[in-house]
Amino acid sequence: MSEFRKRKDSDAKAPESAESDHVDSEDDKLGASMNLSKTVPTGTDKAPSVLEFLLQDLPEKWRNWVVRGIFSLLMISFFLLVIYEGPLALMITALVIQVKCFQEIINIGYAVYRIHGLPWFRSLSWYFLITSNYFFYGENLVDYFGVAINRTDFLRGLVTYHRFISFCLYCGGFVWFVLSLVKKYYMKQFSLFAWTHVALLIVVTQSYLIIKNIFEGLIWFIVPVSMIICNDIMAYVFGFFFGKTPLIKLSPKKTWEGFIGGGISTVIFGLMMSYVMCQYPYFVCPIEYSETLGRMTMECEPSALFRPTEYSLPSWLSVLGVFGVSNTISLYPFVLHSLSLSIFSSVIGPFGGFFASGFKRAFKIKDFGDVIPGHGGIMDRFDCQFLMATFVNVYISSFIQTDSPQKLLSQVLYLKPEQQLQLFHMLKESLENRNLLELNN
Amino acid sequence: MSEFRKRKDSDAKAPESAESDHVDSEDDKLGASMNLSKTVPTGTDKAPSVLEFLLQDLPEKWRNWVVRGIFSLLMISFFLLVIYEGPLALMITALVIQVKCFQEIINIGYAVYRIHGLPWFRSLSWYFLITSNYFFYGENLVDYFGVAINRTDFLRGLVTYHRFISFCLYCGGFVWFVLSLVKKYYMKQFSLFAWTHVALLIVVTQSYLIIKNIFEGLIWFIVPVSMIICNDIMAYVFGFFFGKTPLIKLSPKKTWEGFIGGGISTVIFGLMMSYVMCQYPYFVCPIEYSETLGRMTMECEPSALFRPTEYSLPSWLSVLGVFGVSNTISLYPFVLHSLSLSIFSSVIGPFGGFFASGFKRAFKIKDFGDVIPGHGGIMDRFDCQFLMATFVNVYISSFIQTDSPQKLLSQVLYLKPEQQLQLFHMLKESLENRNLLELNN
Repeated sequence: MSEFRKRKDSDAKAPESAESDHVDSEDDKLGASMNLSKTVPTGTDKAPSVLEFLLQDLPEKWRNWVVRGIFSLLMISFFLLVIYEGPLALMITALVIQVKCFQEIINIGYAVYRIHGLPWFRSLSWYFLITSNYFFYGENLVDYFGVAINRTDFLRGLVTYHRFISFCLYCGGFVWFVLSLVKKYYMKQFSLFAWTHVALLIVVTQSYLIIKNIFEGLIWFIVPVSMIICNDIMAYVFGFFFGKTPLIKLSPKKTWEGFIGGGISTVIFGLMMSYVMCQYPYFVCPIEYSETLGRMTMECEPSALFRPTEYSLPSWLSVLGVFGVSNTISLYPFVLHSLSLSIFSSVIGPFGGFFASGFKRAFKIKDFGDVIPGHGGIMDRFDCQFLMATFVNVYISSFIQTDSPQKLLSQVLYLKPEQQLQLFHMLKESLENRNLLELNN
Repeated sequence: MSEFRKRKDSDAKAPESAESDHVDSEDDKLGASMNLSKTVPTGTDKAPSVLEFLLQDLPEKWRNWVVRGIFSLLMISFFLLVIYEGPLALMITALVIQVKCFQEIINIGYAVYRIHGLPWFRSLSWYFLITSNYFFYGENLVDYFGVAINRTDFLRGLVTYHRFISFCLYCGGFVWFVLSLVKKYYMKQFSLFAWTHVALLIVVTQSYLIIKNIFEGLIWFIVPVSMIICNDIMAYVFGFFFGKTPLIKLSPKKTWEGFIGGGISTVIFGLMMSYVMCQYPYFVCPIEYSETLGRMTMECEPSALFRPTEYSLPSWLSVLGVFGVSNTISLYPFVLHSLSLSIFSSVIGPFGGFFASGFKRAFKIKDFGDVIPGHGGIMDRFDCQFLMATFVNVYISSFIQTDSPQKLLSQVLYLKPEQQLQLFHMLKESLENRNLLELNN
């Protein structure tokens, strides 16, 4: 929520775009369709009229700060409220944010390619959004509630043929697109088709991964999101007080000092936050469907990741032993993993922001939208979160064992009875060969 | 390999593009960069000089036919040779074709956005191609050879962290892209970035799915590919002899008669071809890593899908019984499944071709390339195959049970020993509750 950084950014943009009028000629030739600010609703200066009225006596600059501040606090409160409400509220929020992001990206596309006259295009892009959400949200539900859903005959069909139904829906959209092609607009239509697919790739797949992360335990969602927010703010603070060396041409106001200071702060913040959250089963337990309770639960015996573990210090530190300091240390393993997350969020995370700001400059827009007064569009607030969600997901599947016996069992129960028996005997043999079975029998 | 249809298409294109000079104005404003035919190598008229020499006495029109014919036969022979050589040769061919297709699509992008001066762009798009191939080919290898690969310590790391490594490689490309952004070219660079990603989406994911299909048994690859080829040719033949009613504005020479005739022929051809191929284990067996042999094998007891099964005829046909005709029929179940495949390939398949021909018209190019004399580019020959690969894959996972006990066991063996035991006891209990276990014990 780098509300501070933003102001500096837009200060910097004004002179630059004046200068770019004669430099960007190559780009201008290509995009005959510029001056999007007229067609795309964009801007951070808009505020609700009640606020405008209350703040009318303040000088312009201060008014802007107050609006930004108020809406930052509102967003953070809303975020906390949603977390308090639990995973279902989080998932719905993720869906709403995803739809708004898609809308913002696609609206820019409409403006760039001036779609008036393009047959069916608005309907087509929303159709693709719905189709891909059907596919991805379905995949999640099938993964986590497959066993429960299978009880109901009607839903069983939807589960078994989920991919097939999704693919047919997609094919429908594809055929519809081809049929909607009109000679005069071929190139625009293909460009928007590509634009829609890239938007889907960025927005829908990410929100799918975010929801997958939430299912693994709220901590896998809250910690990474907070890290990005922290890094955003602290990079601004360090840049403001110590910033000298420019970091990247794309965003002239970003400095190495801010980048490094923000990074170090994020690592420390991440360690502390993880340490606190590890202690609450509410954050730590995966969301699973409980057969016995017949509903979703978030109660569990915390996995080894969230149980204090003794680590022996590296040998060069064990000299401390002579001073009576223990040479082991007790830590939640998750706290160590949080190191990787915070390093990623402070090294690669900002590039999501650079990418978005490059994109905005390419199409000469100030913000992605104007939904959040003082902040711009939803995409402006979530630009750095996108890579993070994928990273967390890949990290979990690579370094944290996720295949639980329960999940595999539900897969086994999909097999035909004779295959289940075959698997049973193969497993039995394998366990016996390794002398594992006698121990428990 | 609709070599015939092609000639008619290009005949039709000449007058149309003359007319379009004043109609396509909307598109022309947008794409200041047209006349790509000068920069993209395109055309069906080029032939190797030896052939040119041999055929120099033939009239122009005939010469073209002979070249097309010769190269059609060469392609079919090559295809048969590759099938004869086995799955490894097929996979390598799929990879080579994929790379060529990517190159053709990306070259058009380069021409559209005139990349001279764009820093790093060629390297970046090839980097993304290599990265995504690393990811997708790796996923296949992990899926099918995971157990075998795990024997080697070094490879074990590559398997366990496959997604993580791939994601890091991707992030590297992403950061590289952001760092390569240059003010003058922002919009071009973002457009090409999107272009590259759409090309990857079309080409790499499809070739991944094709290889997955090959692993399920060669029949899942050969039958669908041949169906598309058959549909292409037969639609031309029927259109040529009976064609009257135009089908779609996009391709003025396609007719409903060709569409329907081609469809019916494809269904019949598919039934016959499936019937023949079902009898050979070579085509029918999935490619699996055999623990006992220590290598890939394609020998198996054909699954139920490929064993003759008695079907009782629908009751309204059972009146035939009075004439002494049996009211059951013996069929390979796969032959019935081939019906769905052939219906898809003749109803939706052609839309892949329409899409590609719309794309070519959008960018005013005649063909995607000039690699195959008389035919154009590789993409021109494979345009209808793309949706088909996905369809087959989704079809297999929805209607043909693919989770084999072997595959699940290898997943189970990834668990920790105590979790394996836990799963074993849960499975045992579940089997006992259903009275399945006593039968075999």
